[in-house]
Amino acid sequence: MPEVIRIPVVQMEQEFRRILMKFGFETKKAEQCAHIFAVNSLEGIYSHGVNRFARFTQSVKEGHINPKAEPEKKHSSGALEQWDGGFGPGPLNATFCTERAIELSAEYGIGCVAIGRTNHWMRAGYYGWKAAKAGFALIAWTNTNANMPAWGALDCHLGNNPMVLAVPYKSEAIVLDVAMSQFAYGTLNVYRLGGRELPIAGGYDAQGNLTTDPSAILETQRVLPMGYWKGSGLSLLLDILSTILSGGLSVKQITDRGSEHGLSQVFIAADISSLGNQHLIPKAISDIILDYHSSKPASERDTILYPGERVLRSRKQNTEAGIPVDQTVWREIISL
Amino acid sequence: MPEVIRIPVVQMEQEFRRILMKFGFETKKAEQCAHIFAVNSLEGIYSHGVNRFARFTQSVKEGHINPKAEPEKKHSSGALEQWDGGFGPGPLNATFCTERAIELSAEYGIGCVAIGRTNHWMRAGYYGWKAAKAGFALIAWTNTNANMPAWGALDCHLGNNPMVLAVPYKSEAIVLDVAMSQFAYGTLNVYRLGGRELPIAGGYDAQGNLTTDPSAILETQRVLPMGYWKGSGLSLLLDILSTILSGGLSVKQITDRGSEHGLSQVFIAADISSLGNQHLIPKAISDIILDYHSSKPASERDTILYPGERVLRSRKQNTEAGIPVDQTVWREIISL
Repeated sequence: MPEVIRIPVVQMEQEFRRILMKFGFETKKAEQCAHIFAVNSLEGIYSHGVNRFARFTQSVKEGHINPKAEPEKKHSSGALEQWDGGFGPGPLNATFCTERAIELSAEYGIGCVAIGRTNHWMRAGYYGWKAAKAGFALIAWTNTNANMPAWGALDCHLGNNPMVLAVPYKSEAIVLDVAMSQFAYGTLNVYRLGGRELPIAGGYDAQGNLTTDPSAILETQRVLPMGYWKGSGLSLLLDILSTILSGGLSVKQITDRGSEHGLSQVFIAADISSLGNQHLIPKAISDIILDYHSSKPASERDTILYPGERVLRSRKQNTEAGIPVDQTVWREIISL
Repeated sequence: MPEVIRIPVVQMEQEFRRILMKFGFETKKAEQCAHIFAVNSLEGIYSHGVNRFARFTQSVKEGHINPKAEPEKKHSSGALEQWDGGFGPGPLNATFCTERAIELSAEYGIGCVAIGRTNHWMRAGYYGWKAAKAGFALIAWTNTNANMPAWGALDCHLGNNPMVLAVPYKSEAIVLDVAMSQFAYGTLNVYRLGGRELPIAGGYDAQGNLTTDPSAILETQRVLPMGYWKGSGLSLLLDILSTILSGGLSVKQITDRGSEHGLSQVFIAADISSLGNQHLIPKAISDIILDYHSSKPASERDTILYPGERVLRSRKQNTEAGIPVDQTVWREIISL
């Protein structure tokens, strides 16, 4: 078992910043990108934070991510804009698009930014938290390379196309960050390394049976879409929408490029402060959560949490104790 | 087994129209509403077509649906509007909102209409087909009464909150019509009546185990959210968004009213003909579907269909042979 160490968030962010500048990021961009990786780690999404950082710099090195690229506006239809990501850093482009969708929604009530030729945005939830804490509702999604079979199929022609839905809640937010596969490959690997079975079926084994064995699924690559035919259909529609709205690349075209880059993403923000019922909204949301929390748990193990509730705990724990990192992962990072 | 008869769509629509006028619908509204119920039946969605018609008229009789109500604008933020449904007929209000969202998107690129105090829209897909065949992309959803437990909970505090995503495809459309529960209650009943097991687990039995036995699930009412925690989270966010954007009633508030009426719905349309890449969009979509259709089926039984593909077959078959209806269902309707 690798030893887990605790790194204070400030130290982690400084380290990320140092490395990104070494990899060609200008100071401001290095700071912003380091901040996103650090926040994702602080909030417990290590797979798209500290554990992904080295791979991110590798993509920069390979030329798939251009640290100097700025998003450029290709077309405006008013509240709907198309941008070109220039193969820039996904987290920076996605932050830009979130902010631009917010600006458009402040002007028009609702705003939509679609961006093509961008890169992996890391954690969908980051953009949801950002918009919601600024007082806006956000719906956003990305396509990916082909990593999931359609329902009833053997081979991967769909992306897991993560999606985020977010609304403000008290001084925090309710943020659903959800990919279209039932389990991420990272999760399957965590279970495999821990020698554990999945709690529910996550895909198919070589005999074509649904299984909870992570190794068998990793072998066939037949991961299960969430909700079987439902997640399969959602994935397809999200790909079509991100491709046509952005004028960018589809899952198929991204896959044909070999490594996952040049993604298409959509960001829709709504300015709820512009609505006639704006003063009633905080109570409306609190009442829904109050009722939701009043659900009877099926067992003592079950706690009925709203999406994003766990983030608050991770943020608090990791702020106090430092961010947990495998020592080998951290050693690799500081050697960059 | 009840005998199934075939009713020509024209005859069915005329019958619906006659009855709706008897129930207080003005001619034009009766025609429009009859058309929606007939099309839903023609396209194979009998549960929200002919099989639901008598119950719909019952709701009118009970005063939960006001056939004379017109939607009224409460607030405009430009491309985002709030409307009040006045407890009018759900299919008419939803058609109105789809058309209004299209108008707004033609003006602003994207348009969003949220409506409160409306009623069950019957089939989500209808509005997707309508928008997509007019050349627009549509995302829309509704809340419902509480009919699904949160993930890990025993009692129902979530709605199944159906959602539709639609884009044009050739002269037709790709339309995903998807509720947040893995199976509809109607589907569970069909399996129960047929003495069949569900193909996958659809909920819990009285012992708290996942089961494919429809009767056991109907007894506990513990239906499974699609994708377990994922559909549970999506349902919650869709309820919050429809409630706050419309200024209408939440799942909890609808449930407190006793019978399911006064729903909140959101319609977001995008004018893809306004985009810089508009001439490339048909090919972009066709290429995605071509790749999707090239998926290797897991078995000979499996056909990889895109969402909405089955509708084309039903429409063709039922146009030629008439719409299949249980004789008892049809007898009840013609006696209205």
